[in-house]
Amino acid sequence: MRKISIEELIALVPQYSIAGDPSGKYFTNIKVINEANQESLVWVSPLRKDKQQLLDETLADIIICDSSVDVSRVKDNGKCCLIVDNPKLIFLRIASEFFSPKIVPGIHPSAVIHPDAVIAEGVYIGPNSSIGACIIGAGSVIHGNCHLYSNVTVGKHVTINAGTVIGADGFGYSKNEQGEFEKFPHIGGVVIEDNVEIGANTCIDKGTLGNTLIRKGAKIDNLVHIAHNVVVGQNSVVIALAMIGGSTVIEDNVWVAPASAIRDGIIIGANSTVGMGAIVTKPIPVEEVWIGNPAKKMSK
Amino acid sequence: MRKISIEELIALVPQYSIAGDPSGKYFTNIKVINEANQESLVWVSPLRKDKQQLLDETLADIIICDSSVDVSRVKDNGKCCLIVDNPKLIFLRIASEFFSPKIVPGIHPSAVIHPDAVIAEGVYIGPNSSIGACIIGAGSVIHGNCHLYSNVTVGKHVTINAGTVIGADGFGYSKNEQGEFEKFPHIGGVVIEDNVEIGANTCIDKGTLGNTLIRKGAKIDNLVHIAHNVVVGQNSVVIALAMIGGSTVIEDNVWVAPASAIRDGIIIGANSTVGMGAIVTKPIPVEEVWIGNPAKKMSK
Amino acid sequence: MRKISIEELIALVPQYSIAGDPSGKYFTNIKVINEANQESLVWVSPLRKDKQQLLDETLADIIICDSSVDVSRVKDNGKCCLIVDNPKLIFLRIASEFFSPKIVPGIHPSAVIHPDAVIAEGVYIGPNSSIGACIIGAGSVIHGNCHLYSNVTVGKHVTINAGTVIGADGFGYSKNEQGEFEKFPHIGGVVIEDNVEIGANTCIDKGTLGNTLIRKGAKIDNLVHIAHNVVVGQNSVVIALAMIGGSTVIEDNVWVAPASAIRDGIIIGANSTVGMGAIVTKPIPVEEVWIGNPAKKMSK
Repeated sequence: MRKISIEELIALVPQYSIAGDPSGKYFTNIKVINEANQESLVWVSPLRKDKQQLLDETLADIIICDSSVDVSRVKDNGKCCLIVDNPKLIFLRIASEFFSPKIVPGIHPSAVIHPDAVIAEGVYIGPNSSIGACIIGAGSVIHGNCHLYSNVTVGKHVTINAGTVIGADGFGYSKNEQGEFEKFPHIGGVVIEDNVEIGANTCIDKGTLGNTLIRKGAKIDNLVHIAHNVVVGQNSVVIALAMIGGSTVIEDNVWVAPASAIRDGIIIGANSTVGMGAIVTKPIPVEEVWIGNPAKKMSK
Repeated sequence: MRKISIEELIALVPQYSIAGDPSGKYFTNIKVINEANQESLVWVSPLRKDKQQLLDETLADIIICDSSVDVSRVKDNGKCCLIVDNPKLIFLRIASEFFSPKIVPGIHPSAVIHPDAVIAEGVYIGPNSSIGACIIGAGSVIHGNCHLYSNVTVGKHVTINAGTVIGADGFGYSKNEQGEFEKFPHIGGVVIEDNVEIGANTCIDKGTLGNTLIRKGAKIDNLVHIAHNVVVGQNSVVIALAMIGGSTVIEDNVWVAPASAIRDGIIIGANSTVGMGAIVTKPIPVEEVWIGNPAKKMSK
Repeated sequence: MRKISIEELIALVPQYSIAGDPSGKYFTNIKVINEANQESLVWVSPLRKDKQQLLDETLADIIICDSSVDVSRVKDNGKCCLIVDNPKLIFLRIASEFFSPKIVPGIHPSAVIHPDAVIAEGVYIGPNSSIGACIIGAGSVIHGNCHLYSNVTVGKHVTINAGTVIGADGFGYSKNEQGEFEKFPHIGGVVIEDNVEIGANTCIDKGTLGNTLIRKGAKIDNLVHIAHNVVVGQNSVVIALAMIGGSTVIEDNVWVAPASAIRDGIIIGANSTVGMGAIVTKPIPVEEVWIGNPAKKMSK
């Protein structure tokens, strides 16, 4: 493995201070701090109670941390700390730069692409995926075994993980005189803006008449259900096995925790948090945290 | 787009009255009422609090509504209301007739069909689907990336959305003397009756010895788990991320809301409702509404 | 159908006693006890309240039961009971031996296999599955429409049902100065040990730096989410629509019931039970039962 010098590392960090002696230090791998060897790059989470012990005992030569740990013994240990404001963010940028597997663009020959699909430059489409009459933006990655119905628009630098289905008809019916359900036709689509990431085996239904909309930078996890005509706001997060009912609007920077459910037709205000397993039957104002079944505002 | 005259529309409506002047009116598109243009056909939901305002302010020339709104100003506005008992149902029938995308029958060449499968006339099977030794009834639609194990019987005019898996072994084990699980063999199948619709990425397991049964007209949404030997009754509804435990019987016309879970081996009585996120550990009598964790009968 | 004599049956049972007259008895099929015909092999569950009635009224000639039912009338009825300690286990072994469909090893031509994948003898890979640079152990079965990313190691005699996705990136991000999420690179993998069974449309994410680990004999049902770096212990069970958060450790012999959710970074002690729909936000000690939202220790 290639030796990456501390100078190469530092070149990627906008602001830092150093404790210990950086001269000649390098790393060849990235590890969790308590599983490191001497050639590992590691980071210390400011949130961990045992952070001082982790720092003192790690075998790694180079440690990314913040100023909440005591770095006075680092020099004597022959190690070197890079002290930054957000060690997790800096570590993940370094890790992405040097260790993230790069995906080579291209359409796997087993993928089935509708003749009317419009696919930009630098797109990857994995094996056994099926793409309808869709628009796929530059640099997007659609892993294998996905299914995109027609009328799905995917922005730039979007990632969609395996097994995800986008653009199925929503669940809209009306009972007739015989007590049987007749189906509302779904002529809308799905619009996914730039830099969205979507997990595996997730479902995003198409809109009934308008579109379902996933806005810029939103992150959606595995096995999530997003019903017809939902809006998920910018940089909002919807985690595994969460359910968003039809026409509900999730505003920007909302955190929807796993296994929660949000009823149809309501608004979840910006910067709010829906707790794990919360069953949300009412609108949530901005910047509130709601938990429980039925969900209520969390008392501090 | 084709101009559809109000005469063509009226020909499809069994019973109605008219307010305003229908002469020369037509539509070329269907829209949500507050996003309409003059050439849109729209409807007003009787359940909306702002229905009068929506009616008064819409740009559409033709509006389907019921008698709960005041149509006295329609004539002066140069518009025309078709007044019916169930506007949603009438609107969806018109929409289906003129705007629903028609699926052309055929088996996509990338689909893998077991040599013993029996597939009727007018069936569509989408790309990258795998069909075992199954029977598929006339006019049914199986979208792409589905997987049907052998011994699944699908009735007529059934729709199965992408990514759905039908006929996997159920979750049945017995612990042996070493504390290891040994598996119950699953030799049953799945029977899906006519006019059933099933969402995307849903799972319906095969029966252990008998069959799992989805009865006529039932509607199942995305990411639903239906365990071995379950019965879902006629015109019952199971919405996204709901879980039905093994051998449980959902009787007719039941509404199972999203993210609910129903334990194994119980009966959910006809016309009952399981609320969103309800965790049902006991049988539910007919026509009751149960909510909460654990679920209890809702007090009025 | 072949007649299987009671002597063939008895040869597979280590310890038993007999009531009634076994001479000349045989079976040609296996059935649920109240749906049996004379040629059926059936069993009586010791847990059923109506077990005596089921035994007395069944049409089957051969019944596997335990000593909790009264077998004194069996002889007069011309039937024969095989009395064992664990009738379910004995029945499933007989059923597996004579009736379980055998899967013929082989890789379906529509499956896409990475050139660096290492696949042992006797493996089955079904139609439209995609296998990355993985190691697949002897005798394992991967049904169709599955997707294994690279760096997944599957042990021996593992079963993975259709539509399951293993090895997608976990849900790990850090917010940057602009309030946008940057992604933690996932360079870990997934290790699945021997005799694990995994349901349909389930997701098991890869580890961030280390591995996600499913230990020997664990059983995972349909539509389960297992996040990055989780450990599922030996012979533990995770049932449909359950959610296990990142880095959480499920110890051995744990029962995770359907539709439950367990937060990230905690330990669920050995032999404990997480009840249906439980929302677990704290570690669970060994051998406890937790239920509710939020989950609490069940009082006896």
